[in-house]
Amino acid sequence: MTNQHEYFMAEAVKLSRQSVASGGGPFGAVIVKNAEIIATGTNRVTVFNDPTAHGEIVAIRQACERLASFQLDDCVLYTSTEPCPMCLGAIYWARPKQVYFGSTKEDAARAGFDDAFIYRELDTLYANRKIPFHQMMRESALEVLQEWINKADKVPY
Amino acid sequence: MTNQHEYFMAEAVKLSRQSVASGGGPFGAVIVKNAEIIATGTNRVTVFNDPTAHGEIVAIRQACERLASFQLDDCVLYTSTEPCPMCLGAIYWARPKQVYFGSTKEDAARAGFDDAFIYRELDTLYANRKIPFHQMMRESALEVLQEWINKADKVPY
Repeated sequence: MTNQHEYFMAEAVKLSRQSVASGGGPFGAVIVKNAEIIATGTNRVTVFNDPTAHGEIVAIRQACERLASFQLDDCVLYTSTEPCPMCLGAIYWARPKQVYFGSTKEDAARAGFDDAFIYRELDTLYANRKIPFHQMMRESALEVLQEWINKADKVPY
Repeated sequence: MTNQHEYFMAEAVKLSRQSVASGGGPFGAVIVKNAEIIATGTNRVTVFNDPTAHGEIVAIRQACERLASFQLDDCVLYTSTEPCPMCLGAIYWARPKQVYFGSTKEDAARAGFDDAFIYRELDTLYANRKIPFHQMMRESALEVLQEWINKADKVPY
């Protein structure tokens, strides 16, 4: 008998295979709470013309909608491949308690995906990045952050 | 007369201020193509219960829908605050030609947001991260990446 983690990872891998068969990228994810799958996602980038529609993001959005919360308290995410920086950021914002992944970002790179490249760019100075980033008008933008800090009835997250 | 970059950044900052007033987080973004705003976004995380609904992500999804493309060719993104790792990843996947930002991730941290923390976690070994990440069943997940590599009629991105 397979253990619970193996069962849910096999579900994520099965979704990744179904995604390829239905025109999407080779990635799948499931989110589990109390030993039950509450959301699933597959890579729909080219199908939906949505560069953010990675399996993990699709599953996180679905799980949060189902839980009516922007936090995945006590949830576990299983994803067929190591999360890219976008999905890793989304995971930190959603705050599940644990993450399990199958293949690595180097494996994804060998299959033609930019994951490892984006991780490297994160550690590169803005001036040397492939997409140029420029800072401007900080004082004007800071005023709004100060308004947020001063706001009494905000919902922090 | 303000230059074009100042005009569009002022629009992003204006959106960030409107977002606070309408119950969202203090962040706004606009996407420009051929000197025209084609999409806008504000932080809707707590409003929509969607942890991925940062201003940049909302704007990228809207721009891609409008262009019917998963790539933001020749587009420029203006965002009121330096993108968090999630949004930075989304930017790399969407591939606009340039990014302009106002306040910094340290400014965001001072306003109570996790941006700088998540950047630090990216450079931390999995075993030492606040959210534990575990690898498992790599061989099974790799089979699907190999099926993708072998697929003749795929849409690469």
